[in-house]
Amino acid sequence: MSNNIYNYVKKANYQSDSPLSNLRDYAILHDVPIVSDEVLNLLNVLMLLKKPARILELGTAIGYTAINFAINSEADITSVELDDEMVNLALFNIGATGYSDRIEVIRGDAALVLDDLMKIGDTFDFIFIDAAKGQYLTYYKKCEDILSDEGVIVCDNVLYKGLASGVRTVRRNKTIAHRMRELVDYVMSLEQYESTLLQSGDGVLISVKK
Amino acid sequence: MSNNIYNYVKKANYQSDSPLSNLRDYAILHDVPIVSDEVLNLLNVLMLLKKPARILELGTAIGYTAINFAINSEADITSVELDDEMVNLALFNIGATGYSDRIEVIRGDAALVLDDLMKIGDTFDFIFIDAAKGQYLTYYKKCEDILSDEGVIVCDNVLYKGLASGVRTVRRNKTIAHRMRELVDYVMSLEQYESTLLQSGDGVLISVKK
Repeated sequence: MSNNIYNYVKKANYQSDSPLSNLRDYAILHDVPIVSDEVLNLLNVLMLLKKPARILELGTAIGYTAINFAINSEADITSVELDDEMVNLALFNIGATGYSDRIEVIRGDAALVLDDLMKIGDTFDFIFIDAAKGQYLTYYKKCEDILSDEGVIVCDNVLYKGLASGVRTVRRNKTIAHRMRELVDYVMSLEQYESTLLQSGDGVLISVKK
Repeated sequence: MSNNIYNYVKKANYQSDSPLSNLRDYAILHDVPIVSDEVLNLLNVLMLLKKPARILELGTAIGYTAINFAINSEADITSVELDDEMVNLALFNIGATGYSDRIEVIRGDAALVLDDLMKIGDTFDFIFIDAAKGQYLTYYKKCEDILSDEGVIVCDNVLYKGLASGVRTVRRNKTIAHRMRELVDYVMSLEQYESTLLQSGDGVLISVKK
C-alpha cells in the first residue's frame, strides 16, 4: 500500500508542462538529487503565502530549486554550493533560463558562508536547507541569526531515506540519521518558532518564526 | 520501515504540553476522528504565514481543530457540523476553553451552509475541509466562491486511508476513493491556485489562490 501511496502522490504533483522539465529530466538522467515534485509544490505554496523578498538556499546542485524560486516569487535569491562542477552547471542553467540577475550562486562551505552573511548583516525571509546532510543542525542555528521576523526555514530530507526514524544501517548513515534526529528534537522544541515535521518527500521540516 | 517513519513523525509532532491535551485524549478514548498532530502543526504553520481574519471549517466534530484555530490565530471562526451530538459536545468544549465569542458553530449540511454563506456574501481567507469524505469536490467548488484573494483551502484525509491511491476495497470505500481522486485531479489542474498534495497525515491537499 505504501508504494501505491508514494506513486499516487508523486503522479498527482507532477506537472508535465513545468518550465523546469528539461532540468528535471537532466537530474534524473545524471543521478543528481533534486527536490521531489511534492516538496517543490509545497515550497511554491509557502512562497505564495510568504512572498519573500530575499531567499537563501543551501545546496544549489544544478540550480533546479533556485530557478523554481525565481519563477515562483519576486525574490532575490542567494544559493550556496561547495562543488565546483555543480556551481558551473548551476550558473549555466541559471543563465540559460534568464535568471542571472536574480540568482547569485556563492561557491563555498555553507557553514562558512553563513558566518560571512551574518558578519555583513544580511537577512533573509525564506531559507531552504538542502546541503550536507550531517550539518543541518549547525546550519539551522546559524540561519536563526540571519532570519528576518516571521521568516521561514524549510529543511528537506530530514528523515534521511527513512533512516532517522530508526532503521538499522551502516555507520556513516547512522551518524547522519542521529544528527537529523537531533535537528528535529531541537527545532520542535523551539518556542519562538511554529514548526511541523512532514512525512512528505523524504521528510520536510518547516519552521516559521513567531 | 514505513511504520517506523509513521511513528517517528507522530512522536516528533506530539506536544505533551498542548492546551488541547484533554480534548485529544477524549477523542482517542471515544474514537472520535481528529486531525493528526502533524497536520495540526502544519495548519498552525500555514496560519502563522497567512494570518487569516476569518476561518471556515467544515466538520467541527468535538471542536478540537476549531479551538486550535482560535488559540493560534486572531481569526473569527465559523465551523459547520451536521451531527447534533457533536454540535453539543463542540459547544461545550468551546465554552469550557473560553472561545465562544470567536467560534460560531453552525448546525447543518456543509453543502447547504456553503450556499447560504455565499448568498449572504460572506468570504473567508482560510478554509479547512474535514467533513463528509464523499463530498469534498462539491465542497471545494463552493468554497472557491467564498474564498478571498490569496486565500487558503486545506483538505484533510484526501488519501482516504491510502485507498485513493488505488488499493482494492469495498464498494462504499471505492466510491469515496474515486471521488477523492476526482478532487485531487480537479484541484491540481486549477491554474488560479498553487497547490500541493502531501503524503502527510492521511493526505493533505493545500491550495493557495494566486
